[in-house]
Order: sequence, then structure tokens, then C-alpha cells
Amino acid sequence: MADLAARIERPDESFRLAARERQSRLTKPTGALGRLEDLSAWLAGVQGCCPTRSLEQVRVVVFAGDHGVAGNSVSAYPAAVTAQMVRNVVSGGAAVNALARLAGASVRVVDLAVDADLDDIDPAVGEHKVRRGSGRIDREDALTRDEAERAVRAGMTIADAEIDSGADLLVPGDLGIGNTTPAAALVGALTRSDASLVTGRGTGIDDATWMRKCAAVRDAMRRARPVLGDQVQLLATAGGADFAAMTGFLLQAAARRTPVVLDGVMSGACALVAQRVAFRAVDWWVAGHLSGEPAHALALNRLSLQPVLDLGLRLGEGSGALLAVPVLKAAAATLAEMATFDQAGVSDRTDGALTAGTDGGADGELLEGADGAH
Amino acid sequence: MADLAARIERPDESFRLAARERQSRLTKPTGALGRLEDLSAWLAGVQGCCPTRSLEQVRVVVFAGDHGVAGNSVSAYPAAVTAQMVRNVVSGGAAVNALARLAGASVRVVDLAVDADLDDIDPAVGEHKVRRGSGRIDREDALTRDEAERAVRAGMTIADAEIDSGADLLVPGDLGIGNTTPAAALVGALTRSDASLVTGRGTGIDDATWMRKCAAVRDAMRRARPVLGDQVQLLATAGGADFAAMTGFLLQAAARRTPVVLDGVMSGACALVAQRVAFRAVDWWVAGHLSGEPAHALALNRLSLQPVLDLGLRLGEGSGALLAVPVLKAAAATLAEMATFDQAGVSDRTDGALTAGTDGGADGELLEGADGAH
Repeated sequence: MADLAARIERPDESFRLAARERQSRLTKPTGALGRLEDLSAWLAGVQGCCPTRSLEQVRVVVFAGDHGVAGNSVSAYPAAVTAQMVRNVVSGGAAVNALARLAGASVRVVDLAVDADLDDIDPAVGEHKVRRGSGRIDREDALTRDEAERAVRAGMTIADAEIDSGADLLVPGDLGIGNTTPAAALVGALTRSDASLVTGRGTGIDDATWMRKCAAVRDAMRRARPVLGDQVQLLATAGGADFAAMTGFLLQAAARRTPVVLDGVMSGACALVAQRVAFRAVDWWVAGHLSGEPAHALALNRLSLQPVLDLGLRLGEGSGALLAVPVLKAAAATLAEMATFDQAGVSDRTDGALTAGTDGGADGELLEGADGAH
Repeated sequence: MADLAARIERPDESFRLAARERQSRLTKPTGALGRLEDLSAWLAGVQGCCPTRSLEQVRVVVFAGDHGVAGNSVSAYPAAVTAQMVRNVVSGGAAVNALARLAGASVRVVDLAVDADLDDIDPAVGEHKVRRGSGRIDREDALTRDEAERAVRAGMTIADAEIDSGADLLVPGDLGIGNTTPAAALVGALTRSDASLVTGRGTGIDDATWMRKCAAVRDAMRRARPVLGDQVQLLATAGGADFAAMTGFLLQAAARRTPVVLDGVMSGACALVAQRVAFRAVDWWVAGHLSGEPAHALALNRLSLQPVLDLGLRLGEGSGALLAVPVLKAAAATLAEMATFDQAGVSDRTDGALTAGTDGGADGELLEGADGAH
């Protein structure tokens, strides 16, 4: 993946600054749109234009895989659920489908390592399948190195296909019983955190189960530590084919100058791995939301990404990222469509001060600014 | 307004419970959609149906008015800006217009007390005008009692007109130089908070200006305290015609069983006044976002409302509430469109446990639940 790092550039700083400058001329107090202004500047940078283009081709790619560590009766749901849910996504009945329809996004599910034969559904689903299931990462590698490399390349190929067919915003989703365990192990290993700090409660597991999960994370982290300098081997040791593919997908999106909205803890873990490959890649991503899983907050902190939403989602599939898409569209629309003071014949501040980046401030009030003269 | 209290009923609890029950059968772990599940249950209750109807007729009403307390050179913007911004909204160039287009909402601006003659624009804008400007609330009443009553009735009439023409979700917006000062005074008086705790920084005012603003809020609160038991008089004393109209609008929406997304500190202040008239009205409202203005957090706390978004907006116009509309639509869409376990042929939990309301939990993972048997 070394060549990837060289191929990933920074977003265009001049357009980011142009967006900031334009924000100061729009008919509102500077900074009054809060996070929308930051996001509009980010979008201007990654799109390389100001005003920003509206986001018309949002694509969700759901990376599906089973995880050996979940097979040992560690889930409240039977192992068959991953495959059943792939079918549910394909037939449009999952949360990601409802949210994508609303956001005007398409959904593609890719089977990297589901432990089932899904040949009867759309062959595109299985075209990048690496294996059925993966090794129990607390005691064996998830994948061989060759499998990990194939999965990374599959993710890059998937990103290319989406971008070549016009995607202007990508959302990585995930699907797979047990995938928070490798996610926690990867985040724990890469942030040098204790297993107890990265292991979450799942959908509400009891204390004894949490301790078993925590032990699995601890053992996987112990196996991961010696290979932290080799990201492909790390994905083979403590990740899985879905993790490796999502990591390749994130990196290739950055190489292709295409913005990404990250979702929950799995995309956070993959983003951390990708950051080790190419630190500039992070500039192409925004964090859609904060999940309840503790490893997610640690990953975002390490990535220096601030989540757009905090709605207590813990579903995966790309659901939290999809909810942030309308906020990004709002950032683009306000930058592009609002009138400037000149255009609208609205008077600007009388004190001539520019208050970019002021904190706090008046909500519910249109244009009251620094009272009196400075 | 006493008859209003009697006319406001509770939302339908049976549909709220039906939504909760349906959420437990959808193809996801119970509770995994976090706040979306709460919002879907609220929508089911206020709509009186489950699954919820999609929100097709979202209407923003922007209440515009000038405030005497701002006329005394306490704004960085000249006083003419309120009227100029009314024209900007009418011609579609303001933030609320861009955000409403994106959310599929209509925008109507109503001049209650703008200190200008706006007769040359759409006559509907001025049909409820009560007066030009309002009294300086630190030393005189904003309105006469008769004016306040007329403004409250105007707000009720506006709500009726929107609901009669098909609105299924209402958003109160605000427009007016200086309107955070009465908002802070009302919230301070009604929550018995010190002026220094409710006075915000506007768009970035300096310390000396903040102290002047704080003194005005303190004086207005002192004038408001004797009339706290009489909400119409309170709006006349420390509010304004736009505040009185928005309060009537919020109450009539509740009486007409129509849900409302509150915006920033001005709608928070009006909601507090309305709560004193009819405590059940609050059940018909959701808080769209949290602004940076300190009085807003105090108001929402007293209303027991949890904001959906926290994006640092401090613009008013209904902008923050409009950003929450897609989240509400997502709540409705997931409840209505997701497949149930039975429909999708997906296996439910093997332990038979229902984990409604579990905290924390696994994001980035589809259906891992309470590991092992309970």
C-alpha cells in the first residue's frame, strides 16, 4: 500500500479559504451557521470548487463479513443473521435502505467473507468474496496475508467503480455479527488503549459476557501488537476481509479525491489503519456521527475528527453516516444559494469587525452583533 | 388564553406504544436506532397513527419584529437590517430559504412589528402587523395589553391557516435585530435565573457590551417579575409582538394536534411562556437543536426537551429546526419502511430477551446482542 500514500494529496486549500471568505459575505453574522460553515469549507476543499456543488450521487457500500470470534456462541443472534441481513439489504428492507432512499443515496452490499453461500442473489454481491468467515482473532489470524491483500485491492476496485460511475460522496457501511470485536481490537492496538477501554456493551450484554468479550479483545490486541508497523498484516491478524476491503476503499477514495462520510466504530477502526498508511487521507473524510461504542470516540479523537451527529445510533450499515448527509447538503446549499450582503441590499456590520470563529453567540436572533463600537 | 389550556390534549399514548412495539420487531437490535426510535414514537403519538405518515407538508413561519431595546445602538448591524432581511427571505436569499428548499419545506414570513413600511412587498407579509417596533423593555412595556392579545391571536390565526391548508409539521422561525434580549429576559424571569446566566455573547460581543446587554436583561426581568402569573401581560411587558404571536402559534398548533420543531432561544422562550399556559402543549413539540445562547439550554431543561442536533448554529430564522427535519423524516421512514424479522426471514435473538432502552452498545455491528444466554 506504500504507493497509495504517495498518491494521496491534500484537498485544495485555496477553495477552503474561498469558502470561508464567501461565508463572511453571506447575509448572516459570520460564524452563525456554526458547523455548517466548517463543513462547507471542507466540501469546497475536497471538491476543488467554491461555491460547492450539490451532492447528487451519494453511494453507500456495505461491507459484509462474518467473524470467527463471534461464532463461539457470543451473540444473542444466531450466526445465520449476517447472511439473512445481506438478503434483507438487497431486497430493500434494512435501515440502510430506508435512510438511503430518504437521502437520495444508492446502496450496494458486497460480501467479502460472509459464512454462507449467497450465489443465488445478485452476482455482484459476491464478486469480491475472499473467503467464508474468518479466523478467531483471539487465537488465530483472521486471514492469510494473501487474503488480506486481495481484500484491500477489492476495496480499492469497489471505490474506483463507484467513482468512475459518478459518485460524489461515499459512505462505507458494515454488516456482520461480531464485527465490533475486531474493531475494538484494532482501535485498542493502534491507540495503545487497554482492552477494557475499547470493549463496548454490544446491544446490551451482561457483565459476564462483557468480560468474555473483553478477554477476546485483549488476546487479539496481544496478537496484533507485534505487527502494528505492517498494516496489511495487522488487518490479516486482527481484522477480517471486510475490514481490509473497507480500508482499501477509504484509501482509494482519498487517492481519487472523493469525499467520504465515516459511519461508526468499524469505519473508525478502518480509518485508523488507513491513517497509518497515509496520514493525509484523513483530510478527505468527515465523521458522520458518534456511536455509543467506546472505541469509536477513541478512534475519532486519534483521527482529530469531530462527529457531526450524536444520536445514540449503534446499528452500523452506514446508518449514522447517512443521517449526516442532509447536514452536508445543507452546508453546500447555504454556501451556494444564500445571497450576499451586496446582492440582497442588506447592510453589513457598522463596526467593520469580522468575527470569524467567535464562540457562543446569539441564536434566535438574526444579525445582532458586537453591540456598540469596538 | 385560558380556554386554550382546556383545548390542548395529550398525544395518543397507544400509538406511541405501538411504535415502540413495532421498533422491537424491525430487523435491527432493539434500541440500535437510538434517538430515531424515540422520535418515531413521538411522531406516532402526535400523528395518531403507526407506522407514521411521511412528513410532506413542512411549513416554516418566520416571525419578524423589531425591538426597542436594540434601537439604542446596541447592535453591530444598523437597525434597517430587520426590514432588509424580511425582503431577503421573501426573495429567497436567506439561510432559511436554502435550508427549506433542501428539506422540502415552505417559508412564510410574517411582519408583526418590523420598524419599517413593507407594504410594497407581498401584502400577506404585513396582514398581521401589530405596530412598528416595540418599547424598550428595560424601561417600558414592549406592547400594550391589547397589542399583546392581538399578536397572540394573530399567531393562532397563522397556525390555523397553515394547518387548514395541510401542514403536517410546523417550524417557528424568528427574524429581528435584538430579539435575544427579550428572549433572555423571558427565560431568566421564568426560570428564576440570574441575568448573567441567560445573557449570551450575541455574534461575539465584547465584555463591556455584554455587561450593558446583561443590565438591560436584568432591568427587563425586574419589570417582568410582578406579572409572571399573567402570560399575556408578561409578553406585553418583556416580550414583543413577534414573541406573543409565536406563543399563540405554538399553543394553537398543540390545540390542533400538529407537531412542531422548535428552533433556537426565541422559540425556547415562547415555548416556556406557552408551557405556563398549558403544560400539555410541550408534548407536541420537539427541540430541533441546541444553540450557543445560554438561555436556550435553560429553557430546554425546564421544558424537559432534549435537542436533536448540536451544530453550533446561532442564526435563528428556523435554521436549526430545519436541519432536524431530515432526522424526523428518517425516524418516520425507518419505522414505516423497514422489514420486520418475520417479513425478512431474519432470525431474532436466541435468548428471547428484549433490550428496549439499553444504554451504550455496539455501533458498527449489526445484530450482536447479549452474548451467550442470560
